[in-house]
Amino acid sequence: MFRLRQVRIDTLSEHVVFIHEDAVVAGNLGFRPLDRVRVWGRDPRNGGTREIIGVLNFCRDTLVRPDEVGLSEVAFRDLGLEDGSIVQAAHAPAPRSVDLVRSKLWGQQLNEAAFTEILRDVVAHRYSKVELSMFVLACALRPMQLEELVALTKAMIHTGTMLRFPHAPIADKHCIGGVPGNRTTMVVVPILAALGVTVPKTSSRAITSPAGTADTMGVLADVALEPERLYQVIERAGACIAWGGALGLAPADDILITVERPMEIDTEAQMVASILSKKKTAGATHALLDIPVGPTAKVRSLEHAQRLAALFQAVARHIDLHLEVAVTEARGPIGWGIGPRLEALDVLAVLDRAPGAPTDLREKSLYLAARILEMIGAVPAGGGYRKAMEALDSGAARAAFQRIIEAQGPQPLPPPAPFCATVPAPTDGRIRSIHCWHMARVAKQAGAPANVSAGVRLLRTVGDIVRQGEPLFEIHALSQAQLDLALEYARSQPELVSFGF
Amino acid sequence: MFRLRQVRIDTLSEHVVFIHEDAVVAGNLGFRPLDRVRVWGRDPRNGGTREIIGVLNFCRDTLVRPDEVGLSEVAFRDLGLEDGSIVQAAHAPAPRSVDLVRSKLWGQQLNEAAFTEILRDVVAHRYSKVELSMFVLACALRPMQLEELVALTKAMIHTGTMLRFPHAPIADKHCIGGVPGNRTTMVVVPILAALGVTVPKTSSRAITSPAGTADTMGVLADVALEPERLYQVIERAGACIAWGGALGLAPADDILITVERPMEIDTEAQMVASILSKKKTAGATHALLDIPVGPTAKVRSLEHAQRLAALFQAVARHIDLHLEVAVTEARGPIGWGIGPRLEALDVLAVLDRAPGAPTDLREKSLYLAARILEMIGAVPAGGGYRKAMEALDSGAARAAFQRIIEAQGPQPLPPPAPFCATVPAPTDGRIRSIHCWHMARVAKQAGAPANVSAGVRLLRTVGDIVRQGEPLFEIHALSQAQLDLALEYARSQPELVSFGF
Repeated sequence: MFRLRQVRIDTLSEHVVFIHEDAVVAGNLGFRPLDRVRVWGRDPRNGGTREIIGVLNFCRDTLVRPDEVGLSEVAFRDLGLEDGSIVQAAHAPAPRSVDLVRSKLWGQQLNEAAFTEILRDVVAHRYSKVELSMFVLACALRPMQLEELVALTKAMIHTGTMLRFPHAPIADKHCIGGVPGNRTTMVVVPILAALGVTVPKTSSRAITSPAGTADTMGVLADVALEPERLYQVIERAGACIAWGGALGLAPADDILITVERPMEIDTEAQMVASILSKKKTAGATHALLDIPVGPTAKVRSLEHAQRLAALFQAVARHIDLHLEVAVTEARGPIGWGIGPRLEALDVLAVLDRAPGAPTDLREKSLYLAARILEMIGAVPAGGGYRKAMEALDSGAARAAFQRIIEAQGPQPLPPPAPFCATVPAPTDGRIRSIHCWHMARVAKQAGAPANVSAGVRLLRTVGDIVRQGEPLFEIHALSQAQLDLALEYARSQPELVSFGF
Repeated sequence: MFRLRQVRIDTLSEHVVFIHEDAVVAGNLGFRPLDRVRVWGRDPRNGGTREIIGVLNFCRDTLVRPDEVGLSEVAFRDLGLEDGSIVQAAHAPAPRSVDLVRSKLWGQQLNEAAFTEILRDVVAHRYSKVELSMFVLACALRPMQLEELVALTKAMIHTGTMLRFPHAPIADKHCIGGVPGNRTTMVVVPILAALGVTVPKTSSRAITSPAGTADTMGVLADVALEPERLYQVIERAGACIAWGGALGLAPADDILITVERPMEIDTEAQMVASILSKKKTAGATHALLDIPVGPTAKVRSLEHAQRLAALFQAVARHIDLHLEVAVTEARGPIGWGIGPRLEALDVLAVLDRAPGAPTDLREKSLYLAARILEMIGAVPAGGGYRKAMEALDSGAARAAFQRIIEAQGPQPLPPPAPFCATVPAPTDGRIRSIHCWHMARVAKQAGAPANVSAGVRLLRTVGDIVRQGEPLFEIHALSQAQLDLALEYARSQPELVSFGF
């Protein structure tokens, strides 16, 4: 018998149980650190039993007393009992679904019921970080057949909430990533909204990149919209650019990301299931998928892009989603900025038609908006580009973006990062390409996306002719240490910027 | 700038860094939970800088104040600065060797230098649990060529200490496991010691089983011997049965086990590298490897056992270790007891030649001891069995065991578990086999090995003829809840005990 104690340590999605070593020894509980422990107590409201399962941390500190069981934040919330309640603790077996994960590791295929069982346990925080890693790697390393991938996608759809809107078509877009600065969503959505198309756009925060759309939009407006507020925003502005994590659309995916991020693992099966389940649960009827192809992007050959496109479309058919794919070319980042604040400035420049606004971001956004307009039948085939350009150049898209920001809740633009260094061109010549992955890493070393003002600002881009010593790009950071780390990384990468024709 | 604070939370091998949320926000540090953080400060003893890298936990509690950085036990010890020292904290990149792990995940082969780099970082606690999981699963899921396995084994040998003894031969034995109650080591080592053979036996605690030899020996004597004490024990008793974890022989392996245990993953490559590196670093020149084969054991066919034996021998040749393999038959557990205390009683009964002592444990131990005696040339071929039996039946082995216990430090035998239930035979008939894996799980559900008195005591064994309702086995537990859990599991497994001829 213990007293429950709320321990305000944020362990992300993991339930952590803190028990004092003296209690373990005195009670002969036989616990070892990292054991799985069940904590349960009586709910005074209805007389029922409430329980959670978590991973044990041994305490020899004053954090919890020997007569207390401490629970980390999520665990305390999920148990739902008052601080000081009487609870018990005992060893708990792993959830049965971990056996399914293990069978997948050894090569077995899983069906929808199996994936649903796994994802329900994941969502209930019954998986430790080690078990989450097992599941992610099982999906990453074992080839998935179409049938299995459809099962995983459906299981993801069914373990979360689902948004519903009265009038189809509901449009959506998504980029599979890998190209820094590629913030087309924040231009495309306002264009579509200006033309009366409903777009309940949900985006993720960065997993392995220096910024996700949710990070960049978060610089300008509140993005943590719960379903109720999202419906209000759509009603007022016709569209939104929200962070998916607050919506519970595919909550299992949001938890899996917590281990994918430190692993820097982002595999095709997970990607297909994650993206399509989120489009579907966001209420989309039509979606356009951008697959950038380039020698340093996530997808490096046209063949790969086509194979991936076919996979996405096959799964989309099984979940009744109209999906088109735009295979785009990537020889470097899009826009000038890399990192939340610097990318937001690019988006505003394009929408404001400011001098010096990045042409590549503008043109790519117009192309994607045009494809969506034609796909949903809002314009005849071939008429999309002109329509999108009119919406942008008339200022209608900028006004629509302002309505979205106002509806979501505007945020003051953060100040520039205090530390900045310029990297010069090592040679004369024409910039042939900029290495997406390495340049993203420079921005990450500088502190992006956690430090929203940190990142990289390109001063020259692919196709430009430069002279040796001329400034090529700036690094922005919040501390000298991070600036040094990023500079050191940039200097150590001879492939960062390639010259030639 | 923070003040260092020792946080007495045992997170096993993971370095955890606790920082208050207010400090993160105020300092615009841009940390997120689970980020990797470097903590450093000046060492007043020599003016140098000391640093550790750990995983961040966000605090909103009084555990650490906003001006403090808290470190979990291992992290605090490894940093080696005084409580209250001035330290700094900043984002840290993952160790470079994590890129090697990732390349292995994607199918690349690693060489000895790569494995050494990885294991050095593991031993320095630079890997988070998620990254440890990645490495274990990479080794588990990607087939390893002989060359790669030799590289891994050598890297494990070279990242730890190495015991050295003056007079060869130095004998050792090992069982790959999977058969509950199979405590032959504790009979074989005393027999060999009684005959003057040096055996610096090191054993592991249970990974996925209800007891390892170190757990069972730990019931009778101290097993946490550091190298100095181990040499003393060998000097006084000629042999030891120690826990490998305290010796630092293959410290990387001991850390990898912390994630293998919750994953219940125990793969061939890891097993070969782990076992052979530990034999080699324990100073063995000759070793006998027991591979039990049975329909419910770890190895289920003779072909598999032979393939595994060939793999072990190929790697052993590359590290200059004379290895022989005994392929033994397993149709159920060995001995009566499963769980540390109950197994220790079996061992004592065999050495004491008590009535009712388990015949199978005695006979298997004699066979293995005989093989070792012949292998090291202590007796002519064919003379081992008689020699071993004489040592056992004369009481010399019991006396040798007592010397080992006295030298290591005797422990009082723990009392029997307070809760016990008997499971009856479901039918008349002859017991054809007992399911090793399921019976092990019954003992684990009852609390073994953490609760040393918990486990299973067989009352009848393979080959016995029983009547319906007659007691088959007992379950011992420290609480009614654990007893119920184990009983429920036993009842749900129709294959637990098979009848027939």
